[in-house]
Amino acid sequence: MNTDNNKDIEKIKRHGRPGGADDREQDLLYDSNVPTPTHAEDARTLFSRISTATLCTMSINPEGFPYGSFVTFAEFEGKPLFLISALAEHTKNLIKDPKASLMVSEAGEGNPLALGRFTLVGNCTRLEEGKLSEAKEAFVSRHPSARFYIDYSDFFFFTMDVIDVRYIGGFGRMSWITGKDWADASPDPLAEHSVGIIEHMNDDHRDAMIICCKKLSLAIDTNDAFMTGLDRYGFEMSAITNKGPRPIRLGFENKAVTSEDARKEIIKLVKKARQME
Amino acid sequence: MNTDNNKDIEKIKRHGRPGGADDREQDLLYDSNVPTPTHAEDARTLFSRISTATLCTMSINPEGFPYGSFVTFAEFEGKPLFLISALAEHTKNLIKDPKASLMVSEAGEGNPLALGRFTLVGNCTRLEEGKLSEAKEAFVSRHPSARFYIDYSDFFFFTMDVIDVRYIGGFGRMSWITGKDWADASPDPLAEHSVGIIEHMNDDHRDAMIICCKKLSLAIDTNDAFMTGLDRYGFEMSAITNKGPRPIRLGFENKAVTSEDARKEIIKLVKKARQME
Repeated sequence: MNTDNNKDIEKIKRHGRPGGADDREQDLLYDSNVPTPTHAEDARTLFSRISTATLCTMSINPEGFPYGSFVTFAEFEGKPLFLISALAEHTKNLIKDPKASLMVSEAGEGNPLALGRFTLVGNCTRLEEGKLSEAKEAFVSRHPSARFYIDYSDFFFFTMDVIDVRYIGGFGRMSWITGKDWADASPDPLAEHSVGIIEHMNDDHRDAMIICCKKLSLAIDTNDAFMTGLDRYGFEMSAITNKGPRPIRLGFENKAVTSEDARKEIIKLVKKARQME
Repeated sequence: MNTDNNKDIEKIKRHGRPGGADDREQDLLYDSNVPTPTHAEDARTLFSRISTATLCTMSINPEGFPYGSFVTFAEFEGKPLFLISALAEHTKNLIKDPKASLMVSEAGEGNPLALGRFTLVGNCTRLEEGKLSEAKEAFVSRHPSARFYIDYSDFFFFTMDVIDVRYIGGFGRMSWITGKDWADASPDPLAEHSVGIIEHMNDDHRDAMIICCKKLSLAIDTNDAFMTGLDRYGFEMSAITNKGPRPIRLGFENKAVTSEDARKEIIKLVKKARQME
């Protein structure tokens, strides 16, 4: 998985740095082959949790410019679904030329360039009549206030056929995803539970995580550890070592679909680490 | 001011509503000619307070699609200034075709379509060499972490010559702004103080605002009032009337540039209202 990622890491390493060697480069303290979500899966997870974005269309006035506008969207059959007014610039633009992209970005604190985001590139056209009632349901469940104008005669549903996806997960973590890989991937089933599990682990089970870092990774001098991420394939920690915080990822034996699955998989890893003490 | 605004309100009224008359329409309870920031001024104020956006460029691969990407920017001579990597898609796109737009959106709670946003449309080109040191200073003061890569040989400063601006202040409040009006407008000098002043007024001076609503607007049955906005030309309140909350705007006698100016102007209005009791 993520072979494109390695190419991009290589690219980053090729950046023309002014001062020669870079002391920020560090050896990875965990097995880089540990199961990890693909970029397509990461993008689908973000897509399932965000509902506003920038739609880029081909402007008819001023003509020939790429034009960005704010939109709300819902997920519908793995594609973005828009409910847009005939009066809006983007709608007029799409009627003339369906070529578009949708830039979806995570919100958050800290360095904005470390946030995850992706761009769907494809053609945006009016939704076929036969899918209208399903589309209305999907849209209103994501945007309840849309019920006030969903039946206006000059609001239309548009959807995008995704051709290509550019995914940027943060610094040096990026790739192009094909439309097929996008369609085949699914959002992380633990996405809505992960914050709660992470808080619980950091509140009550730091000792267990320290042992995991010491025994299941190369961070043998770990003196504290915090969970920083969790997904269907494993979890990530920040191990506090004598040289400072270092990222550690451990993979689950079996894919976790529910929070109970995740609990069992984490316990298995802690047991394994304790047996090595 | 804001004559375009009225046209857009008319447009909104023309929306093909399914149920005939709309009981949400209400008469304005204050003088609509009260001094108000222009859309260009509102956009410049947002521009001075936001530093991430979506850049739209003409994609070279896949070819011919408008391509949205996440960018950080700084304000430089009234234009957006970007520090972008030669490896990034948007940079390659701009080198081939300078046509671009930048969609800048306010963040916030509540209905996302009620948030302010604007799109700058223009040509993005490399900054001229002579302005490099000033540009570095402007960029690093807005994005301190950029100092780590600002001198990399494959990062470049680009800036946009703004041709047209689409401003959307929320529902029914939108217009096109010319590049000249954009360049001539200035951000609100009270922008960084307004939150503090509004909190202070709502904590300690609701009685004064109730009198202002009763005597200086048509909301004569106001029984409570909250300040909701403040700018160089006046302030806005939500007047709690027997028919529910209603927006009220009052204009200052003189333009306020400092928070002390604003304090004096507010006191003048309260005195005027008290004299009418």
